[in-house]
Amino acid sequence: MSSIKEDIAIDPIAMVQTYGEQASACAAKLASADTEAKNAALLAIADAIDASAADLLAANAQDLKAAKHGGISDALFDRLELNDARVASMSKGLRDIAAQADPIGSLSASERQPSGLEIARMRVPLGVIGVIYESRPNVTADAAGLCLKSGNAVILRGGSEAALSNRAIAKCITQGLQSAGLPQHAVQLIATTDREAVSALLKMEEHVDVIIPRGGRGLIERISQDAKVPVIKHLDGICHVYVDAGADKEKAMAVAFNSKTYRYGICGSMETLLVAETEAASLLPELCEKFLAHGVELRGCVKTQALVQGANKATEEDWSTEYLGPILSIKIVADVSEAIDHIAQYGSGHTDAIVTSNIERSRLFVRQVDSSSVMVNAATCFADGAQYGLGAEIGISTNKMHVRGPVGTLGLTTEKYVVTGEGTIRL
Amino acid sequence: MSSIKEDIAIDPIAMVQTYGEQASACAAKLASADTEAKNAALLAIADAIDASAADLLAANAQDLKAAKHGGISDALFDRLELNDARVASMSKGLRDIAAQADPIGSLSASERQPSGLEIARMRVPLGVIGVIYESRPNVTADAAGLCLKSGNAVILRGGSEAALSNRAIAKCITQGLQSAGLPQHAVQLIATTDREAVSALLKMEEHVDVIIPRGGRGLIERISQDAKVPVIKHLDGICHVYVDAGADKEKAMAVAFNSKTYRYGICGSMETLLVAETEAASLLPELCEKFLAHGVELRGCVKTQALVQGANKATEEDWSTEYLGPILSIKIVADVSEAIDHIAQYGSGHTDAIVTSNIERSRLFVRQVDSSSVMVNAATCFADGAQYGLGAEIGISTNKMHVRGPVGTLGLTTEKYVVTGEGTIRL
Repeated sequence: MSSIKEDIAIDPIAMVQTYGEQASACAAKLASADTEAKNAALLAIADAIDASAADLLAANAQDLKAAKHGGISDALFDRLELNDARVASMSKGLRDIAAQADPIGSLSASERQPSGLEIARMRVPLGVIGVIYESRPNVTADAAGLCLKSGNAVILRGGSEAALSNRAIAKCITQGLQSAGLPQHAVQLIATTDREAVSALLKMEEHVDVIIPRGGRGLIERISQDAKVPVIKHLDGICHVYVDAGADKEKAMAVAFNSKTYRYGICGSMETLLVAETEAASLLPELCEKFLAHGVELRGCVKTQALVQGANKATEEDWSTEYLGPILSIKIVADVSEAIDHIAQYGSGHTDAIVTSNIERSRLFVRQVDSSSVMVNAATCFADGAQYGLGAEIGISTNKMHVRGPVGTLGLTTEKYVVTGEGTIRL
Repeated sequence: MSSIKEDIAIDPIAMVQTYGEQASACAAKLASADTEAKNAALLAIADAIDASAADLLAANAQDLKAAKHGGISDALFDRLELNDARVASMSKGLRDIAAQADPIGSLSASERQPSGLEIARMRVPLGVIGVIYESRPNVTADAAGLCLKSGNAVILRGGSEAALSNRAIAKCITQGLQSAGLPQHAVQLIATTDREAVSALLKMEEHVDVIIPRGGRGLIERISQDAKVPVIKHLDGICHVYVDAGADKEKAMAVAFNSKTYRYGICGSMETLLVAETEAASLLPELCEKFLAHGVELRGCVKTQALVQGANKATEEDWSTEYLGPILSIKIVADVSEAIDHIAQYGSGHTDAIVTSNIERSRLFVRQVDSSSVMVNAATCFADGAQYGLGAEIGISTNKMHVRGPVGTLGLTTEKYVVTGEGTIRL
């Protein structure tokens, strides 16, 4: 990052190799960095971002101009765009991370064994994290902040369309690291748009401990396909709300409507509403009127169509589609068991909710639904690191291994055993 | 497993595909199986093994005869062999697992968020586990027991040389599952020696959540290379003991000697002894005499050779060699920092120990050595699930992701978020 201009002229694979070596060379120093130094760096980066707001916006304006020239979609343009509020939210995010507890170095209660050994576990960083993302420039600051706080070195590879914005943010990060006396290679930005650079990063098992992709399904599948390094995936959110027999109608209306309409484009948005047969006639006509008035297209099963004016017919494909838009599929089911089976068959293991007043069925749903978040009487759109008290998130894991659901600093750590004796030997 | 005879006649890839489907089809039932049913199955399997001891030994005798015929090494023969004590230890292992607490279904303390939501985490199984192992038949019982207790379905693929022994054990497992009313496909043994069956298993991402290989470096590297499913690796144990300046001489002698000689062939065995300059002259001549008398070959740095009669010269290669035998490399270092640097450069991140009386240097070593187990005044040969109070282990993870060190039932689980509201919506 200190020599971006020279870097882009050299062989991208050699460059990524060098970045990997530099990252793992400073990982030990970062792992034992003082909380104070890490927080000082985070606050200094935040200050640098605030102070450089004009530069950031100018760099972003160039990116936006080039993107417009290249014919970018409105949605992509929106993600790429920085403005005063978004710059302020980047620096606020870093200050929030600084205010969080430092997970690193904490030691669990030790358990004494018959041998006399005391066995405990110490929380430690993963080491080196590679983050590969698309157009949003704020990921540069968020990912750097979360990795830094959790004592990890990070190699960032942003979208080519945000290249200038990302470099301007990276400059602030370098300043912050320097002022806090932390290694400059703690955060490195790959300043090339070369795809070979990504391939090299994905295979660098000796230097990179985990890859976190942020972006659409295509990006994540491509990365998972190529990676030799473990990947924390964030795949589809085909989220369900099941309204149980005897559920409070007002709560059911509120949770279902909010789960769909809070924001259509987020992964925690409801895509399929499941309604117990007993509640359908009382709930669906009124709720669906609300959805239709809000511009949500409805696609229902045959029973739903019989109850709801203006509902189209849902096809088999609808049950496994993540719309990420104002479309909702609706199915009337016999009971909680049918709802659980439907979710097992069509869901994506992301976030699923039950609205119920019944303890037994609530417990059954929570036990049996195998999703990263299972919710009771709460809207699926809450699936988010900040809402879970993690401060910020680097993604929402749909993996089962290592970490599931919103990933904050804790998800970027692991534990090692600390074994203490008094000259203890094994007999 | 119910139809082993037919299975071996059919296409191995189709067979493994069927096993994968059957395993994931019963995973939900296993995940919510009662602790009582799981324990009943474990005890019934243990009883069946005890009752079938004669059959097990007869099947094993056939495996041993064929192996001898094929010209097997003594070490491999020893691993393959069952006897009364080893059969008894299999059933005891299962009873120990039954006696352990059930990790599944436990809910963490919930934290209330500003939205009013209560956020907690529930411990759940990973789903379907594939275990690929070499000659030891006891892995069949151990792996089945640990997976069953942790609510996972398991697909076992043992070594071809142990085929008949493994099938005899699998028969006991099926009996036990049946008698406890658990799904028979909870434990399935791939009864073919076809390599294609393994390849298919490694790529079955839709049905298999994790692969655990048990065996030599060659097996584990081959599997890691081919796998699309995450792998919990168990690689080399290049373990160090560092004797610090001012360490108690008696403790240093005991820990160093025990770390090497408890058993040469285990991964937690010390391969390199590091000694602070200040202690070398007082410690090494006496300690090395003990090693030499015990038949341990010594390979030392130049300074060590000057102090120790009969020490050969260590080459650069020695520092990164896992001998798994009666050979020890020895290096005299300036201080704890040089020891930490040596371990970072040549160690394998498995288990490393310091013998010290100094608090600051003990803390430094524990913080900075990045190994799955870091020990203070304890012998490295303690690196073992049973010694850590895990009851049993399915392996020792040298991964950083998900789980590090000895893996018991807890390492075979993950957590999901349980989010509870009262009709709570996001504003």
